[in-house]
Amino acid sequence: MLNTPFQSMIKTLVIGSAFIALSSSAQTLKDGEVQQLSALKNATLESNVSYQILESLTTEVGHRLMGSEGDKKAVAWAQAKMHELGFDKVWTEEVTGTFWQRGEAQAKVIAPYPHDVVAIALGGSAPTSKQGLTAEIAHFETLADLKAAPDNSLQGKIAFVSYQMKRYINGKGYGPAVGTRVGGAVIAAKKGASALIMRSVGTDNNRIAHTGIMRYEEGVNQIPAAAISNPDADLLVNQIKRNKPVSFYLKLTAHTDPKVTAISANVIGEITGSEFPNEIVSIGAHLDSWDVGTGALDDGMGVAMMLASAHHIAQLPKRPKRTIRVILFAAEEVGLLGAKKYMELHKDNMANHVIGAEWDFGVGKIYKMTPGVGKKALPAISSLAKHLASLGVELSSDNNARAQSDMGMLSAAGMPSMNFAPDGSKYFDYHHTENDTLDKVDPEAMKQATAVYTTFAYFAAQAAIDFRK
Amino acid sequence: MLNTPFQSMIKTLVIGSAFIALSSSAQTLKDGEVQQLSALKNATLESNVSYQILESLTTEVGHRLMGSEGDKKAVAWAQAKMHELGFDKVWTEEVTGTFWQRGEAQAKVIAPYPHDVVAIALGGSAPTSKQGLTAEIAHFETLADLKAAPDNSLQGKIAFVSYQMKRYINGKGYGPAVGTRVGGAVIAAKKGASALIMRSVGTDNNRIAHTGIMRYEEGVNQIPAAAISNPDADLLVNQIKRNKPVSFYLKLTAHTDPKVTAISANVIGEITGSEFPNEIVSIGAHLDSWDVGTGALDDGMGVAMMLASAHHIAQLPKRPKRTIRVILFAAEEVGLLGAKKYMELHKDNMANHVIGAEWDFGVGKIYKMTPGVGKKALPAISSLAKHLASLGVELSSDNNARAQSDMGMLSAAGMPSMNFAPDGSKYFDYHHTENDTLDKVDPEAMKQATAVYTTFAYFAAQAAIDFRK
Repeated sequence: MLNTPFQSMIKTLVIGSAFIALSSSAQTLKDGEVQQLSALKNATLESNVSYQILESLTTEVGHRLMGSEGDKKAVAWAQAKMHELGFDKVWTEEVTGTFWQRGEAQAKVIAPYPHDVVAIALGGSAPTSKQGLTAEIAHFETLADLKAAPDNSLQGKIAFVSYQMKRYINGKGYGPAVGTRVGGAVIAAKKGASALIMRSVGTDNNRIAHTGIMRYEEGVNQIPAAAISNPDADLLVNQIKRNKPVSFYLKLTAHTDPKVTAISANVIGEITGSEFPNEIVSIGAHLDSWDVGTGALDDGMGVAMMLASAHHIAQLPKRPKRTIRVILFAAEEVGLLGAKKYMELHKDNMANHVIGAEWDFGVGKIYKMTPGVGKKALPAISSLAKHLASLGVELSSDNNARAQSDMGMLSAAGMPSMNFAPDGSKYFDYHHTENDTLDKVDPEAMKQATAVYTTFAYFAAQAAIDFRK
Repeated sequence: MLNTPFQSMIKTLVIGSAFIALSSSAQTLKDGEVQQLSALKNATLESNVSYQILESLTTEVGHRLMGSEGDKKAVAWAQAKMHELGFDKVWTEEVTGTFWQRGEAQAKVIAPYPHDVVAIALGGSAPTSKQGLTAEIAHFETLADLKAAPDNSLQGKIAFVSYQMKRYINGKGYGPAVGTRVGGAVIAAKKGASALIMRSVGTDNNRIAHTGIMRYEEGVNQIPAAAISNPDADLLVNQIKRNKPVSFYLKLTAHTDPKVTAISANVIGEITGSEFPNEIVSIGAHLDSWDVGTGALDDGMGVAMMLASAHHIAQLPKRPKRTIRVILFAAEEVGLLGAKKYMELHKDNMANHVIGAEWDFGVGKIYKMTPGVGKKALPAISSLAKHLASLGVELSSDNNARAQSDMGMLSAAGMPSMNFAPDGSKYFDYHHTENDTLDKVDPEAMKQATAVYTTFAYFAAQAAIDFRK
């Protein structure tokens, strides 16, 4: 699938005379390197390699929850794809954990007005009994309201939290909404509830519910927990407004088999540096997904763009000075297990991780970059920002960023970092749902974002700046 | 739920002096009537009664397929609502038919790349065997391509038509797409296929499939027929592009019990005319819906707006000259059974149906009106159009319209008609799906459309124009 005339495009651009003169402040690369970088950026902007990789992942693998058949296929797919794309080294590092299985979910309003509800088990949820459970709804508008309920006041009831997530370009509505998903079941159980249902953590109005990880607490009753679709939450609230008792049925067959060890792997590939092979510019994404949709946005886009970025750089006549390492983390969704394993194996080599960036959010073009580097590296960051300005990326005045998601653990361990912010306005319409599929991806936005990561990785590897704090 | 201060609002507006002077060409109503009409229009624009009625229908009844429990509830709900809203007469006219039951649908790609597919049985489909069927996919991009396939060439195969419906404000993409749904199974069966699957007739990209009526033909094998969601159709096409045989599993338990007679009813209510009670201005919608979603758009909006229009007029100090009849048709979705029954019972009274209009399409504001009246009534139509211009409604230069949907049968029998065209750009995102729910309705658009129908009904009843051809 990767038969684009990319190499010849780059050559043409390098040889050609169409370069825009760069300002004299871009002094961290030599003139020839600047031309190389511009040619690379422009050729990448024309390339659909990242989209082709994503098409391959979503078509041939599909979803890939830690421990599932899809996950095993994804690990094999990623290694094969790295070889196909011209990586110099490819290897895996085993990651183990538990294997949660979704089973089926059934939900309906029994009274006062019968209605079938679209529901999904939260990730890690315990099952109901085989027959399911029927109980009266106790409604709370927020998690704080649930927390404020008197002890034992929810005995024999299903707690329902109807908080509605808000839409923002940077996804900041997620924080206030996700607390119910992660911790709501423990709080509800402490009040005596027999189950938790919640409005989906999502900004859409589709009859499709949003899953995502939830947690239990040692010593607290493990009650089943599910999200219902946003239109169903609206309707349930409308029924509750009638001031009659609302009777609700919930059946979940989700379960974790404690005897089964789920085995997965971080898949790692490198474009080996020509001068400083031990200095690592890391770009990452997570290879696993939830077991719904095809994980196109979360985080197939990231996987595809990181692979394409390294591929584009590998097409240059010469390897850049430092090594570019693509890390495809396992088991992010179920608790950053791949990142934890990476830290365990590489904690003594963090000083060699000269800078890193991940993609695990957003679906539109990148509009902002925020560094987290040493002060003396800021002029170099400004120089990089000048290269990215033509792509519509603005440099933040902050210098406190961590890398996203998995790689945030590397940032926390001292790795200099870059955070690229894409338009995430629509991201939570699809996040953790059956709707996370290829059609939601704008190929033009993906070209831009791939060009940003490619430019970043080449710059950081070739300019060989000391980014340390 | 209908405790808006509507009556006092109208009184205030009638007494007040804020009226805009109407042009002297509006001569079909007397000055006092024109003021009444303007007050009515403006007060209706401020009223959320139509939205409240729709909230009631979707919350308390839900979906209502001909013959289902929901349908029985809807018939009772509609009569009670008419009484509550101040109708002068309310009655029902029985409609009978067969009762098709959806059962469950399962679909998946078995090979080359296993994938669970979101599918829905087409309305009226026969079941597969209990075990379901597994067969190779034969792919056609259009219904014409399927028609062109050689006889017997589809033996042992599942025909798959991937034609993608296009989006237009007036919904004209529906026509080219719906042929596969209605007639595709017969054509596929004639070629020897064991089932038909098709890309949904819809403009969305949700993992939610679109149902709708399909037909069999006497003497042709009744093969099962299902629609798959649009993202699943994309993915299936992507698998087919790999040029390996694609093996597909389909199970439908849909069936019609020929021994069961489904019983429903047209629900009819009137605001009786004060001078010409036998002259009927009819406004209509269909009360039934598919058995998915809550039928908010199709055709709950129409039901609510027609009820609200009559209610608003009933709040005036005096009944208009002619009778306003609201007809809520039964069983539109399964073949216009309610409209056929209405014609059977009222065919000798068509001359008394002085003009009519239905709402059974669209979700946005009305932007155009097209009459279908006698030439000598066109000046009166122009006068009505002047009243509606402030609402953003443009008068078409055509004079050939039929009323929509059910009421098109009355138009065909000679009833003068009006067709109001609303923005339908998003209508086919939700049409005949689980996503047809209240949240898709814009309350402001509903106010505008209700004001249009209210103004039309009052004008036609009070001005007492002869609209006949």
